[in-house]
Formats: sequence, structure tokens, C-alpha cells
Amino acid sequence: MNTLYLPELREMLAANNLAELQEFCTALHPARTAEFMEGLSPTEAWGVLRAADGSTRVEIFTYLPEEMQIEILEAVEPAELSHLIADMAPDDRVDLIKKVDPTVVEKVLKLVPTKERRDILRLRAYPEGTAGALMTSEVACLTEDLTVRQALEEISREGHEFETVYYIYIVDAEMHLRGLVSARQLVTHLNKPQMLLSDLMSRDLVTVGASDDQETVAEKVADYNFLAIPVVDAEQRLVGIITHDDIIDVLQEEASKDAYQAGAVEPLKESYLATPWLQLTRYRVGWLSLLFGGALLTALAMKSYNENVQRFAWIAWFLPLVISTGGNSGSQSATLMIRALTTKEITPADWRRVFFRELVIGFLLGSCLSLIGYLVGCFMAPTVFDALVLPLTIVLVVTCSTIVGSLLPLMFDRLGFDPALMSTPFIAGISDIVGIVLYMNVAGWLLSEGI
Amino acid sequence: MNTLYLPELREMLAANNLAELQEFCTALHPARTAEFMEGLSPTEAWGVLRAADGSTRVEIFTYLPEEMQIEILEAVEPAELSHLIADMAPDDRVDLIKKVDPTVVEKVLKLVPTKERRDILRLRAYPEGTAGALMTSEVACLTEDLTVRQALEEISREGHEFETVYYIYIVDAEMHLRGLVSARQLVTHLNKPQMLLSDLMSRDLVTVGASDDQETVAEKVADYNFLAIPVVDAEQRLVGIITHDDIIDVLQEEASKDAYQAGAVEPLKESYLATPWLQLTRYRVGWLSLLFGGALLTALAMKSYNENVQRFAWIAWFLPLVISTGGNSGSQSATLMIRALTTKEITPADWRRVFFRELVIGFLLGSCLSLIGYLVGCFMAPTVFDALVLPLTIVLVVTCSTIVGSLLPLMFDRLGFDPALMSTPFIAGISDIVGIVLYMNVAGWLLSEGI
Repeated sequence: MNTLYLPELREMLAANNLAELQEFCTALHPARTAEFMEGLSPTEAWGVLRAADGSTRVEIFTYLPEEMQIEILEAVEPAELSHLIADMAPDDRVDLIKKVDPTVVEKVLKLVPTKERRDILRLRAYPEGTAGALMTSEVACLTEDLTVRQALEEISREGHEFETVYYIYIVDAEMHLRGLVSARQLVTHLNKPQMLLSDLMSRDLVTVGASDDQETVAEKVADYNFLAIPVVDAEQRLVGIITHDDIIDVLQEEASKDAYQAGAVEPLKESYLATPWLQLTRYRVGWLSLLFGGALLTALAMKSYNENVQRFAWIAWFLPLVISTGGNSGSQSATLMIRALTTKEITPADWRRVFFRELVIGFLLGSCLSLIGYLVGCFMAPTVFDALVLPLTIVLVVTCSTIVGSLLPLMFDRLGFDPALMSTPFIAGISDIVGIVLYMNVAGWLLSEGI
Repeated sequence: MNTLYLPELREMLAANNLAELQEFCTALHPARTAEFMEGLSPTEAWGVLRAADGSTRVEIFTYLPEEMQIEILEAVEPAELSHLIADMAPDDRVDLIKKVDPTVVEKVLKLVPTKERRDILRLRAYPEGTAGALMTSEVACLTEDLTVRQALEEISREGHEFETVYYIYIVDAEMHLRGLVSARQLVTHLNKPQMLLSDLMSRDLVTVGASDDQETVAEKVADYNFLAIPVVDAEQRLVGIITHDDIIDVLQEEASKDAYQAGAVEPLKESYLATPWLQLTRYRVGWLSLLFGGALLTALAMKSYNENVQRFAWIAWFLPLVISTGGNSGSQSATLMIRALTTKEITPADWRRVFFRELVIGFLLGSCLSLIGYLVGCFMAPTVFDALVLPLTIVLVVTCSTIVGSLLPLMFDRLGFDPALMSTPFIAGISDIVGIVLYMNVAGWLLSEGI
């Protein structure tokens, strides 16, 4: 938060110095202006924004942190807000309205012009996480019978209304998507002003459906390096577009979701410090109890090998080492698989190749660790023969864990679950059991032989 | 991979049917054309590309998978490649050249026109991961004394050379950055053709330095919703721009890096299946050995509590449960912290607030798990009094682990290391030791009392 201008801003507000406030609102990039306003109270912030003209007000408001936007909407008189809501980008205002107190929303919506109110209600109906919930409905559309000059004139008149004028969609009278012309094409064909858009437009368009998953949409835009992607309904009618900045937001959101899942935490809806601690506990207790329940099996496994632990006390010393090594090598494999599945580099059909790779890699990794393990074991075990339990177990545990860690995410994906559910903590839990069983059996077999 | 057209393509190649090949190259979006070519050998693919005209060839080539691009460059005669290299986007070709066999690069570079060769050598000098290595040097620049009409004419003449014409940078004779005019502004001011760019341009520009970290650059572009960001040298001279598609690539790359780090794997440079298994082993053995070395301490800790394990055999049964629960709750805290640090929601200065939150949350989580643990313990421990060891230990272990798991990433960040190094496997390793020490001390104290 930047508090540099806060005293001056408060002074201007106290003196109701509109000229200076207006100057503050227009001097910088709206994103920077918003940064300097973060320390203000909702009513103070609205006092500053009121001094700006309509379009600047909306721009600055859009760059304020979401929590502050919500507070402002809930603090200011609904009558004053209707213009702001009407002027906001359709996708941004719907995202915001979903998070504001419904009674406030109802009051404000009544005062918003009919056209915008209908648009809000329509966009709000798309479920979170779909293309429909991401898209904006204000799209620059033209018909194919226009010339380059007519198109440029049309855009110069109406361009300020649209989120992007860089892609212009060509539609027929029923809004069926026919083609795409970029502003770049228009500008580079200025010397052919009579050329028809139908001769200029590309007809092979990549589109997404309104109910498509946002992750799929983001991947398409990333693959094709698009500035925006059109959203169509079941009849191929253009219903909106998703722009590159929304795609960047989706990618950041998905990266967060994956990171939380890898740590067995429910994805947070707000920032860590903004989430109440009781809610944070709720986000964590579910996965933690599940893992705890699974780990109870280790107690049963250990109990069944009680005799071994009693007879050869020193093997208990290495138990945490053996199971954590299994967990770590399994986690590595799971991480590699989950990432490769997310980026579509592999599919469950590749499981045979994965199995053989992980078998070899697991054996190699296990062998390396075995050497260190055996050296330490020789010092701590009763005899160098007894110490052989360690390298044998480590090779087996690491090999099994890499195979389990790689195949389980593939299996989850194949069964239609999110492979990321088989993340580090879960693979570690499974490796614990595998480790105990292998360790106790190797010890039982080798040490009874030795006696 | 789409193999639908492969037989037809091979037929056309065998018959040397240039007209049909050319038709194939222009009918679809270049990204789709590239998809259909993925099954071809490098020489076959080059055969197809040769039929396309210069600019289409470059476009399709850019959409081919990177491995295929490298194979083509290494398989085709250098003389045939010089045009392709000269026509490619400056940032794309430098990224590619860095990965191609240096002897091939040397041969090709000799045949590339001087201007492009110098550009390649200059861009290649920026280290990977900096703004300089991401940027493209072909920028649409104009001077501020031009009118709107002159600017549009200039762009319509030279626009095809630039990666984006949507932001036009205004510079002086020494390339010092003076302002920015968007194509949108130009088009919406078509009705004021005599207006000077100096009256239209925004002067408050957000720029990045050529040596800035790519993650910082990506965050800036994401925050401001830019299409591109200008890169300047120490004297504020414009040296290049970074466009939104490169930002999306960076975000995907950083998400991968974070995911790998969370699983204690060195980030892969290629896809999982494309990475040789020996190299994959190398990427994993370092972290795994380090974790193994740390886990050896658990063996020493266990040895020092040998007496306890011998006297109260049943406590060994619950050892894996106790340490895995500590690991899981610590991992959750570390995941939350690393994500909050990455997204700049918290800073190390917030450590006091984090400490108190995690203390309360850890205590709550530990209490929940304790209840389940005590119930199970009552069935397996000799007496219900002895079983009290479990709930007491679990509350302590979970609380300590959440505090350690949250404060260590903050400490790492404060010391200038990447907090993501303190990811799940490391926190789990530390929790193992904490768990053993707490468990054995609680057991020793409570059970000796009981005797």
C-alpha cells in the first residue's frame, strides 16, 4: 500500500477542493491512482472518485482492490452508484456484484438502466469457472458488406464502448459468427479504403462455448497467442468475448488452486490475512482429518509387526527415515505426473511408458540412497550383516513409491477425478504404509535368517 | 497430435504437388496447420513449409512444437534457413537459437542479413529469466511531431514488420521513451486527423528494465492489464517490448517451476516423456539426497530415546501417525505462506500476525485430531491413562508444525532466499524431528509418572 499522498488527499477532501482532486485522478495511469488510494476509507475513496469524470472514475475504480470495491458499493448511496455500474465493463461488474451484499445489489440494480440491468442478469446466470462467467458482452461487431473505410469510421464512433477494438467480429443479422478482422488489418489496408470486410476477414475461427471450463479456454488462448477469443452459444451465435487480461487472471487463479491442492488445503477465496481464522481452520481440517484417518492404518500395520520391533530394537530407529524417503520419492513422481497431465504432455494411455521409466529411475534413486543408508547403518546396527536390512529396504521402498506415486495420478485422471488430488500428502500417506510393510518384512526375513 | 491429414500430406510431398501444399498452408489458422503437421519428419515438414510463401511459412513454423523446430533447423541446409530466421520475431528466434546445436547456428547466422544477425547477437546476450531475454526488438516507434493521419499512414506502411501495432511508442531522436499512443486512440481520433501525437499520448508510462526478473515483469503486466510493456535501458532508452503472449508463457513457466519445487524436483526443461531417464534421475537425486541426509537425524533422535521404545512398545505403533500428522499440518501452513508471498499478499514483516493466527489454528486443528487419536488409542494402549500420550502429543506436534511451517518460508524470504525452497518435503522433514522429540518426551514424562 502506498500512503504517500494520503494526507494531501484527505486535506483536499476536507476542503472539498474538486479541482485538485480532479487533477489527482487524471495525472497518472488509473492503476497508479488506485494504488495511492488504497489507504482511504470507502467513503473517502468515493469522495475522490466523485471528482473524476465518468470514464476516469470507472477506470480507477476497476483497479482498486476487490475488497475495497465491495466496501464502497456497500457504503455509498445506491442512487450515486447506478452510473458507475452502468459504465463498468460487463464482466467486471458481474464478478463484483456476485460478491456484494444481495440486498444492496437489489437496490442498486433497480436504478441501473434497463439495457445494462438485463445484461447483468444474463451474465450472472453463467456458473463460476465457465467461459460465460469470464466473458464480456460488449463486443465490436460489424457486418461483412462494409468497406475498410466504413469499418474504421464505425469504430472511431463507437470504439470507446468496447473493451477491445483490436479484434472486430463479423456477424450476420442473427449474430452468427462469420469471421474476424483485426484492427491491424484495417490499419494496414488504409490504402485500400473500398475493400470489403468479406474479402479481408479470416473465416477459420477458434471459438469456445459459453459453458466451457475456464482452464480449457485459457489453454486455447495461450496456445494460439490470441488477444481475445469469441464465445458462442449452441447455434454458433456470438454471445461475448474473453480478453487476454481475463486469461491472465485465470492462469493465476489456476496456479493458486494447484498450489493449494499440492499442500492439501482447500483453495482460499480471499487473501490469507483477509480470511477469518475460523474459516481458515475449516479449509484445512477436512483434508487433514482424511489424511489422519489414513495414517491410523500405519498404527495397525505397526502393531501387527510388534514382534519384530521388540526383538530388534534398532530397526525402530530407522523407521522414520525409511518412510519419509518413500514419501519424498513418491511425491516427486506424483508432482511430475500431475504437472505433465495438467500441461497435457501425457495421458493415462501412456501408463506403460511411465511405469518402465519410474521403475528404472526409482531403482537408480533407491540405489544411491542405499549407499548412504548402509554406511550409516553399519555404525548403528549390531553387525554389518544386520545393517543390510537398510539398503535392501530403501531400494524396494523407493522403487515402489515412485511407481505408486506416478501411477495413482494417472489412474485418478483415467477415472475422471482431478489427478491433483493425488498430491504430495496423499502419496506420502500411502508410501508410509508401503514403507512399514516392506521394512518389517525385509527385517523379519533377513534378521531371522541371521539368527 | 492430429494425424488426420498425414497420408494426404505425404502424397502431396511425393508428387511434389506445390499448389495443393500451398492450399493446405493457407486454408486454416497457422496454429491449426501446425497441429496437423506434428506427425511429419523434420524434412517432410520443411517440404510442406517450402510450398508456403515467406510470411505464412514463418507463422506456421512458430506454432510447431519447439522440439520439431529444433530438429528442422538441424536437419535442413543452412542456406535454405536464412530467410526463415530473418523473418521470425526477434524474441522467438533468439529463444530457439539458444537451444539449437551451436555449430549449426554458426553456419546459419553467417547467411542471415547483417541487421538481423546483430539483433540476434544483441538479444542473445541477455541472461535467461530477465526482461531482456523475453523482449522483442521490433517496436512500432514514432515521433511526437506527427499528426494522427501521418501516424496511421506510417503504420499502414510498416505495420507488418511489428509484433504488435496496438501500442505505438513515442520516442525522441536518441530513442528516449516519451509517451505511448494506442492504435485505439488513433482510430477513435480519425475525425481529428491533424491532431499531434504529442497532444494525444499518455506520458505516465510503466516500464521495466532489461535486467528485471521475468516474474516481476509478468506481475506488472497482469496488474495493469497491459497488452505490452516497454523495456528501457539505464538511460531510459527504449530497447524493446514484451507482449501479452510472452507474459502468458512466463506465468505458465513460473507455475510449473513452483509446482516442481513444491515436490522437491528440479524444474524440467522439456516435457516428462522427452526428458531422458538418466537426466530425470539427476533432476531428482539432489533434493532426495538432501532430504535423506536430513532424515538421518531422525535415526539419531530415535536412538537417543531407545529406552522409551523398549519399555513401552506400543508407542512405536503410533510413531508414523504422529510424524505424518505433523508433516501434513506443517505443509498446509507452508503452502499458504508460499502462495501468499508469491502473490505479495503478505511480507516477512507480517510474521507476528502470522504467528498468532497459526498458533490458534494449529491448536484448533490439533484438538480435532486429538479426539480421533485418543479414541483409537484407548483401544490399542494398555490403559486409557496411557492413551493420553496421544492427544497431548498430537496437539503439541500440530501446533509446533503449523508455526514452523508458516515462519520458515517467511524467514527464507526475509533472508533473500526463495521461500518456495521451504516446501512440503522440507517442512515434513523438519516436522519429523519435532514430532519424534515431542512424542518421546510426552511419553517418557506421562508413562514414567504412571508407573
